[in-house]
Amino acid sequence: MSEHSRFNGTYTTKWSNSLAKRTTRMESSVIRELLKITMVPGMISFAGGLPAPELFPVRDFNDAFDYVMENFSQEALQYGPTEGLPSLKCYLAESMKKYDVPAEKDNILFTNGSQQALDLIGKVFINEGDKIITGCPTYLGAIQAWNAYGPEYLTVPLDENGMKMDCLEQTLKDNPDSKFIYILPNFHNPAGTTLTIDRRYKLVQLAAEYGVFIVEDDPYGELRYEAEDITPIIALHKENVIYLSTFSKTLAPGLRLGWIVAPSDVTAKLIQAKQGADLHTGTLVQYLASDICERGLIKSHIRKIKAVYKTRRDLMLKMIEEHFPKEITYTHPLGGLFLWLQLPEHVNTKDLLDKAVEKKVAFVPGFAFYPNGGGDNCLRLNFSNANEENIVEGMKRLAVVLKEACNSKEHTASA
Amino acid sequence: MSEHSRFNGTYTTKWSNSLAKRTTRMESSVIRELLKITMVPGMISFAGGLPAPELFPVRDFNDAFDYVMENFSQEALQYGPTEGLPSLKCYLAESMKKYDVPAEKDNILFTNGSQQALDLIGKVFINEGDKIITGCPTYLGAIQAWNAYGPEYLTVPLDENGMKMDCLEQTLKDNPDSKFIYILPNFHNPAGTTLTIDRRYKLVQLAAEYGVFIVEDDPYGELRYEAEDITPIIALHKENVIYLSTFSKTLAPGLRLGWIVAPSDVTAKLIQAKQGADLHTGTLVQYLASDICERGLIKSHIRKIKAVYKTRRDLMLKMIEEHFPKEITYTHPLGGLFLWLQLPEHVNTKDLLDKAVEKKVAFVPGFAFYPNGGGDNCLRLNFSNANEENIVEGMKRLAVVLKEACNSKEHTASA
Repeated sequence: MSEHSRFNGTYTTKWSNSLAKRTTRMESSVIRELLKITMVPGMISFAGGLPAPELFPVRDFNDAFDYVMENFSQEALQYGPTEGLPSLKCYLAESMKKYDVPAEKDNILFTNGSQQALDLIGKVFINEGDKIITGCPTYLGAIQAWNAYGPEYLTVPLDENGMKMDCLEQTLKDNPDSKFIYILPNFHNPAGTTLTIDRRYKLVQLAAEYGVFIVEDDPYGELRYEAEDITPIIALHKENVIYLSTFSKTLAPGLRLGWIVAPSDVTAKLIQAKQGADLHTGTLVQYLASDICERGLIKSHIRKIKAVYKTRRDLMLKMIEEHFPKEITYTHPLGGLFLWLQLPEHVNTKDLLDKAVEKKVAFVPGFAFYPNGGGDNCLRLNFSNANEENIVEGMKRLAVVLKEACNSKEHTASA
Repeated sequence: MSEHSRFNGTYTTKWSNSLAKRTTRMESSVIRELLKITMVPGMISFAGGLPAPELFPVRDFNDAFDYVMENFSQEALQYGPTEGLPSLKCYLAESMKKYDVPAEKDNILFTNGSQQALDLIGKVFINEGDKIITGCPTYLGAIQAWNAYGPEYLTVPLDENGMKMDCLEQTLKDNPDSKFIYILPNFHNPAGTTLTIDRRYKLVQLAAEYGVFIVEDDPYGELRYEAEDITPIIALHKENVIYLSTFSKTLAPGLRLGWIVAPSDVTAKLIQAKQGADLHTGTLVQYLASDICERGLIKSHIRKIKAVYKTRRDLMLKMIEEHFPKEITYTHPLGGLFLWLQLPEHVNTKDLLDKAVEKKVAFVPGFAFYPNGGGDNCLRLNFSNANEENIVEGMKRLAVVLKEACNSKEHTASA
């Protein structure tokens, strides 16, 4: 007890005086708090954004590890260059050529998942008070990364075709000094929407006109379950697009391996930021990913998980259609991991979560995805991380809670 | 060519307008630039701080990987908690108990090597203009991490027993609003010195008196080649010590796996910062390290590398004694990876490096370790990453360059 007390409590005043001002803007994410809830036995969670662990390509990892240790153990366990492993860069550069994206060696930087890419972009671009433009809703991890740098968020609404370009244009007209536009073009997290090709062209035109950067965050692009791929924004724009992606959804998030494709002068600054932040991304995991990519195994793995995730998406949509109150609207995502539901205005999904958790089912309430407030009657469901049995059971539990909420006026939306 | 031009050059004006102000303080480290030099064929480099790759415990990694994939593949490849893997935390908490350090679950956070720990500490503590106290010289990675946050560095000289406590006391008296004292107590990088137990007590007393934090950076503590271990500062202090260490020097830097031990309220803030920065440290590498630690393999591995590094240190010291000009003074480190040399005042080691590189031998010039300038006549040598043959040959090459420099007055120290 006395040992433990060395660490706790007595220095609180001094300690809080010592904190940097930016820490007042830093908070734990809702999803992190939700993790505790989802650990409760019997809980069916649609809250996380996790891939299905039963599908991880364990055999491919075993083969890759054997090969890497046999051939590159001294390099794979040693310090490496900040920008990352050349062979893996080559693979990515090659695979982006199908979109005519001129990614070269100097344009790629590996990061600890896309989350670190977001943080490095904040570090390199955002002064306190700078304006950045996001969708509303938008990815909550981006909000969390950037809050540390204190930007002003300008939010632009989405419809079923992604960010509304007329609203974006007005926002840029009113705020021509904005630093960048943050956009999730494919199977948006949380909204599930995909930006049409017409809007991509418009976006590129607006960005050029106002001279702002576009941050294109594309973690789910490879997970399309229907219709054709749409050209990435980086392939349409002459310059000033910073493209992010990751192996977290296509291979394994436990690697913490993402990447940035950006103009070479931007990449150079991001590399400096990365060097101060953690020297470089894990060498071993880059070697493993490189081997799995080079042997073509990642492509067959993606085919496999797409088939499963499509089935889960379809089942979840069917359950909504059959069991949820008709006044609830929802996206029909063409890919990715998420459905986005809009409930009647009077329902507050933060309160609703408590009732859902009582019934042992969890989701993420919508407010978490709105940097400036809003989304109180929305919620996000993940379909990749629950098997069919759990989707059926969990959606039935949720239907009970939703029916009660929709029928009741006692849930008043908070201001 | 035209494709490539999409990414280069034309937007330079706009781009530099878009940069955050902090980027003007962010630069590539000298060591990164030196990497290019050391890639030259035939170069013998004493510049890096790399462990000996021929000693990496490849067989232990193979066994660990098999075990982890057999038993925990779904967990080891999935997202994990921000603070890190409980089993590895337990191991570390247990091993710190030998020093009576009350590390508990809530006091430990895993980071992407110690470099990320330094960055997170900067993020949580440093407002622009805040005063922080470092040794002069000090670890250049810390300077690089913290430059992004814009502190004022107050520097305190070292002697053969580490940071001079009388100078520190004066600095604290003059600057009672300092945020923290950064100290490398064991086998200092670059100075090679070890802080005596008396000075550790004095440091703790001064930190308590002035109410400042101590950041105790201990990457080399396990690599002691003679004399007895000295109690870590965190074991002496009642509160306000943030302790950092890493598996980079004892196991493999390619894992990017370090950790922080700190008071639980500090840890909680660091966890928030880490979550925004990259969600969490790689799960797979934590599982591998945990297995290697639990099976006791890390201890036998450390014994093995200590024997080799001691031999290399002794050989390098012998070469200095036999071949270097007598006016050069140098540390006799009790452990770690580095020797620190002081040359006559008129020799500028930055210029000297060019001449050394011509002779195909490299070191790090001293100025890199001085946040406010200085160290122009000093240099750092690494002995862990060169085999005996290369130590003999490289030191002979260096002796030629040094003799020439010491005999000449044309190298004038820069201001």
